[in-house]
Amino acid sequence: MVYVAVMGHGVVGSGVVEVLENHRDSISKRAKEEINIKYILDIREFPDSPYADKFTKSFDDILNDDEVRVVAEVMGGVNPAYEFTKKCLLAGKSVVTSNKELVAEKGAELLQIAKDNNANYLFEASVGGGIPIIRPMSQCLAANDVVEVAGILNGTTNFILTKMIRENMSFEDALKMAQQLGYAERDPSADVEGYDACRKIAILASLAYGRHIYPNLVHTQGITGIALEDVAYASSWGGVIKLIGQVKRLDDGRIDITVEPMFIKSSSQLASVDDVFNGILVRGDATGDVVFYGKGAGKLPTASAVVADIIDCVKHLKARKYLYWADGDETLVKPYSETEYPVYFRVEGNERKTILETVLKLFPDARIIVRANAPESEIAFINSSIPVYEQERAVTELEKLGVSVKSKIRISDL
Amino acid sequence: MVYVAVMGHGVVGSGVVEVLENHRDSISKRAKEEINIKYILDIREFPDSPYADKFTKSFDDILNDDEVRVVAEVMGGVNPAYEFTKKCLLAGKSVVTSNKELVAEKGAELLQIAKDNNANYLFEASVGGGIPIIRPMSQCLAANDVVEVAGILNGTTNFILTKMIRENMSFEDALKMAQQLGYAERDPSADVEGYDACRKIAILASLAYGRHIYPNLVHTQGITGIALEDVAYASSWGGVIKLIGQVKRLDDGRIDITVEPMFIKSSSQLASVDDVFNGILVRGDATGDVVFYGKGAGKLPTASAVVADIIDCVKHLKARKYLYWADGDETLVKPYSETEYPVYFRVEGNERKTILETVLKLFPDARIIVRANAPESEIAFINSSIPVYEQERAVTELEKLGVSVKSKIRISDL
Repeated sequence: MVYVAVMGHGVVGSGVVEVLENHRDSISKRAKEEINIKYILDIREFPDSPYADKFTKSFDDILNDDEVRVVAEVMGGVNPAYEFTKKCLLAGKSVVTSNKELVAEKGAELLQIAKDNNANYLFEASVGGGIPIIRPMSQCLAANDVVEVAGILNGTTNFILTKMIRENMSFEDALKMAQQLGYAERDPSADVEGYDACRKIAILASLAYGRHIYPNLVHTQGITGIALEDVAYASSWGGVIKLIGQVKRLDDGRIDITVEPMFIKSSSQLASVDDVFNGILVRGDATGDVVFYGKGAGKLPTASAVVADIIDCVKHLKARKYLYWADGDETLVKPYSETEYPVYFRVEGNERKTILETVLKLFPDARIIVRANAPESEIAFINSSIPVYEQERAVTELEKLGVSVKSKIRISDL
Repeated sequence: MVYVAVMGHGVVGSGVVEVLENHRDSISKRAKEEINIKYILDIREFPDSPYADKFTKSFDDILNDDEVRVVAEVMGGVNPAYEFTKKCLLAGKSVVTSNKELVAEKGAELLQIAKDNNANYLFEASVGGGIPIIRPMSQCLAANDVVEVAGILNGTTNFILTKMIRENMSFEDALKMAQQLGYAERDPSADVEGYDACRKIAILASLAYGRHIYPNLVHTQGITGIALEDVAYASSWGGVIKLIGQVKRLDDGRIDITVEPMFIKSSSQLASVDDVFNGILVRGDATGDVVFYGKGAGKLPTASAVVADIIDCVKHLKARKYLYWADGDETLVKPYSETEYPVYFRVEGNERKTILETVLKLFPDARIIVRANAPESEIAFINSSIPVYEQERAVTELEKLGVSVKSKIRISDL
């Protein structure tokens, strides 16, 4: 019999309790131990819950109870989750979490504390919800060098982009719909500004390269600037716009890492990842491309990933799982301004002929693309690979010459 | 320092040696032990190999050497792999394998022997090549009831079907091309008759339901009967033909399991799995649909999965991984003739009007579908869900009435 505590009784937390109860038999069989919830931590009261007797408002109840060996931290946010997690690990309790923000900010430190105290810190649910990705990357791909990870990591923005692409819905309307359906928060910035995807790609990058990649080192751009015009041009180019988190290992040992909207070809496996689904491509030197696809969020998928980690902790109460990365710093990441890629521009000006001349002066190999019903004053083009600092210099030049840059989107190599 | 032996130096076996050598450092770090190959078993001679001194023709060298703790069986086939594996496990050595035939035929017995001798028997590489599927299903999905598994499990047949669909190539020409490219064997029957896919879905079913499902209980039909006419009708219906292995849990506790070509809608995630790629959908009651996608075969992908299992065994020399299923029997499987599904027919006769009348007499709710350049004497239709025994009765009736059934293909619910 192993006792666990669940910190947080929100969407994921209540799901964890539900999954642990509903799958009691199969879970005990796999864990080779009966797993019992001893405490549920929440500042709110749940007098009508069938588990009312397990609720506590005091973290110390959990910390000071030696019977509690595994703690599920499903509170979200850095504070007080960070302090609670640290104290649990220092006390030798294993911690599992769905808290991507905390793992992305403090992963290296918490993994080190776990290691020093012979405990485990697992976070399968922090990326991809119910899609197994942390464990397969860490274990099955052990015999590979991971050269690239790229994915659609945020279901909310993918839902919005899908509505824009398939139904020609504006960003604002699609966002409103996502909020009505419960896919987006009232304050949607963590999703639409790309912060959520940034945390996830930072976690996957840290895992893949063994050094902590802090989210503030990741160039992060959301989808608020994407217009239906861009969606139309992407389609005429032969693809779709997706918010992609991507990290690549460079020959000099550094990495390229970014979260930004990208044009991706319709033939790419990620192009067909629609609605609230996530898709993650892991490129190993031996396995080639492996893609994981599924619902990236939701109560039960996420909860089942948390419970899988609980089971794993219970099975490894005396042993440590290999899941570890060392601390990292900004020298690991190639500055975004130095990265190079082909790029799409949508510009506007007064007179078509003049715009065209200006564009071709600055981008001699620009390839013009068209869309139906474009105004005369609008031009869109694709330029071959150039460094970001040159792109930006050209944007300044264009603006000086009276051509206004409405949109600039990366062309992916996916 | 842990010593391992590799039995078999064919494509996968030589890949295993290569991956173990090329990733020595990262593998040691993950396994927390240095891993050294002590023996390579093969009846052939490899005098020019850099590992020439490790070769042996005697299995007893491996069996009797107590230093060898983990054995990779990459010989293929049931004999002598079965005997060798059994002896190793009885001696307390862990065994990892890519041998789907052996796992499908003898999995329950070998898992039991492994359990009794505190050893591990792991076979990540037996399904999906380098795609992690056995471990994610067994671990991450521990907190789920798996209600269905469906997949494109054989790269060779998927390559052939892709050529037929995309390039209108005949089955014979596509097979020849697959053989020239090394994707198909000179005797292609294991692939094109569906036996390979059958073994894989049998393994996944055993894992998902905890009881051994023997391959001879799986209705297995290959792709040799698929004609370009059927490909054209599938397209006009709005989909493609894929060879699908599928298993579903039924309410009465039994399972439906089959390998057969199916019409699948273009919108299905599996429809875009093309060429030699595999795609496997796992439907859990909590996670919903999770799809795994990648190259299902090949030297290095498969070898890297074998090596990941070796690492896992080395990390668990004293503990057992949970990977187990009990023996099973025919009562677990619903007889195929009793399964029900919507179905596509392509028939021929003498006179269009008579054929139509005959068809509509036997299939009152048949929905006729069309293709370009179809001869007058050909009719294709979709019928709503009916049991297989009724489909077969109707086929006999049609033939009696002078209408010849050229093709009958399941319409999938994927």
